[in-house]
Amino acid sequence: MKKGTIFSGMRPTGRLHIGHLSVLENWVRLQDDYNCVYGIVDWHALTTSFEDVQALQNNIREIALDWLSAGLDPEKSIIMVQSQVKAHAELHLLFSMMTPLSWLERCPTYKDQIQQFGQQGKEINMYGFLGYPLLQAADILLYRADHVPVGQDQLPHIEICREVARRFNHLYQTELFPEPKALLSQVALLPGIDKRKMSKSYGNDIALSASAKEVQEKVRLMVTDPQRIKKTDPGDPSVCVVHSYHQIYNVDEVEEHAEGCRSAGIGCVACKKRLAQKLEEVLGPIREKRHELMARPGLVDEILAEGSKKAEALAEETMAQVRSSMGVKGPLEG
Amino acid sequence: MKKGTIFSGMRPTGRLHIGHLSVLENWVRLQDDYNCVYGIVDWHALTTSFEDVQALQNNIREIALDWLSAGLDPEKSIIMVQSQVKAHAELHLLFSMMTPLSWLERCPTYKDQIQQFGQQGKEINMYGFLGYPLLQAADILLYRADHVPVGQDQLPHIEICREVARRFNHLYQTELFPEPKALLSQVALLPGIDKRKMSKSYGNDIALSASAKEVQEKVRLMVTDPQRIKKTDPGDPSVCVVHSYHQIYNVDEVEEHAEGCRSAGIGCVACKKRLAQKLEEVLGPIREKRHELMARPGLVDEILAEGSKKAEALAEETMAQVRSSMGVKGPLEG
Ligand code: SF4
Ligand code: SF4
Repeated sequence: MKKGTIFSGMRPTGRLHIGHLSVLENWVRLQDDYNCVYGIVDWHALTTSFEDVQALQNNIREIALDWLSAGLDPEKSIIMVQSQVKAHAELHLLFSMMTPLSWLERCPTYKDQIQQFGQQGKEINMYGFLGYPLLQAADILLYRADHVPVGQDQLPHIEICREVARRFNHLYQTELFPEPKALLSQVALLPGIDKRKMSKSYGNDIALSASAKEVQEKVRLMVTDPQRIKKTDPGDPSVCVVHSYHQIYNVDEVEEHAEGCRSAGIGCVACKKRLAQKLEEVLGPIREKRHELMARPGLVDEILAEGSKKAEALAEETMAQVRSSMGVKGPLEG
Repeated sequence: MKKGTIFSGMRPTGRLHIGHLSVLENWVRLQDDYNCVYGIVDWHALTTSFEDVQALQNNIREIALDWLSAGLDPEKSIIMVQSQVKAHAELHLLFSMMTPLSWLERCPTYKDQIQQFGQQGKEINMYGFLGYPLLQAADILLYRADHVPVGQDQLPHIEICREVARRFNHLYQTELFPEPKALLSQVALLPGIDKRKMSKSYGNDIALSASAKEVQEKVRLMVTDPQRIKKTDPGDPSVCVVHSYHQIYNVDEVEEHAEGCRSAGIGCVACKKRLAQKLEEVLGPIREKRHELMARPGLVDEILAEGSKKAEALAEETMAQVRSSMGVKGPLEG
């Protein structure tokens, strides 16, 4: 007996990095306890990248490879592509008819982004950008998901989703939609190798798909305690990126290394070497799985097509009820 | 060789009345010169009636009967239901990603409506209400229509549609979308029988489907020159509703009747009787056609299903190009 249904998604904006791994590991764990639908939400990606869509198809395959090699299992979960299930657009449109504009305008993430746009002198604000949380609500409610694993920053969107569900149920006197609960997961906040926020665009990330050599090189470039010039200088691990990684990927030995650093008993080169080994223990199997998948051309597309088809069947069950609640049930359906 | 493609639609908000006839007559004429797609836009109806959807299915059949009995011909034109062609929702969503919010906020019809909502203390403003012109743009551009028969009040929406087409073509370096031109048609502005704006909700309209007896009764109740009490009083046709109708439906005899009114040579009863006859000449054949259609149960649904299927095929041709332009081309499609 599973505990419920989960929907979660990621925008296909490029290859994932090690900073995403804790989210994926959480998704992998949830597979056994919930009916999970994991969506590559390509329409969402357009809200910020509609001007540059060359890479979208490739990004979809890359993120699917990242997911699968990190352990998402198409036997256990539905792994789908949003644009393949048109009902996401239909439900979004129907919700848009009954969702007060003010709910979206007041959304804190929206207000933040608009401010950032202003500061960056960026492309003006689009209608669909304002509707982002509504498309997200459609994503979730289309599968009548009752739980959504999200980070803290997404809580306002879950709140809108709950309000939309409540409003729909109230307007049409139904109990069709659950009010999905956020499953807040402990997210390991890994810094980039230069200590800034990890981001592909800064080049300071370690890709999930990085080769062993790339991993070593990235670890070699990690910013350490700048006060520790010579090996005989005692260091301060609390200001060192390498230490942050030991804390997560080398839990057993983190104290030993920190102590060695503080007492100048271990050099940075050795400390980094050990970290690279530990990272390789994590990334090696992911990389191997990735190569297996890539060795079978068409496999990823097949998995996504299959998952999207399963998703569509679930979505159609919901839509049949939505349409009949709203009176939108055209002649083609009898 | 047809002159181009037309899309036009009506919201299924209830039976049509004689005031709609000139629009329909225009649509009927256009059938021979253009490839016409006429849509019953039920999703649009939800923008203002999402709270009261009981009647929607019935309204769709009623408006289809009105259209067909007024002469729309499924052999010549595509007669479809918007909600049956999901690509309307998909294209609307894709457009929403690239359409500046300000285009919609600045739309004069939107500003007017918001003001009216305020005055009426009505339901707060919905996200989809703001997006109304964008869904309309999707309706039109989905069929790559290059002409749109509209009334003056719809011109701002056509302008937004043209801007959306231009923006899409520019962003994706394509010539996929035409910039549709408005086909402004002479609309006969018939007053209601009480001289106010004709509206079903005022009960002052003459339904396209009115029986001969109902027509007579409505004409009998028409407001005449209030100064003309007795038959021997000379009247002023310019203030009389009956005269307005003679001007449109009794062109040959309108002057004769006006003169008779001014000289007290004709009484209001006779004047009205003649109008009722002339209206019957117009509405009789429409009513007859309606009864023929209704005598064949399932026929209207079939016509709508057939039309929607044809529309979907056209829509898919467009969407294939839209998706490949925007990079949204998922694995299910190869
Ligand atoms: S020894 Fe390790 S923790 Fe200390 S500064 Fe060097 S890399 Fe950082
Ligand atoms: S005679 Fe005809 S036009 Fe004159 S007031 Fe009577 S109904 Fe109107």
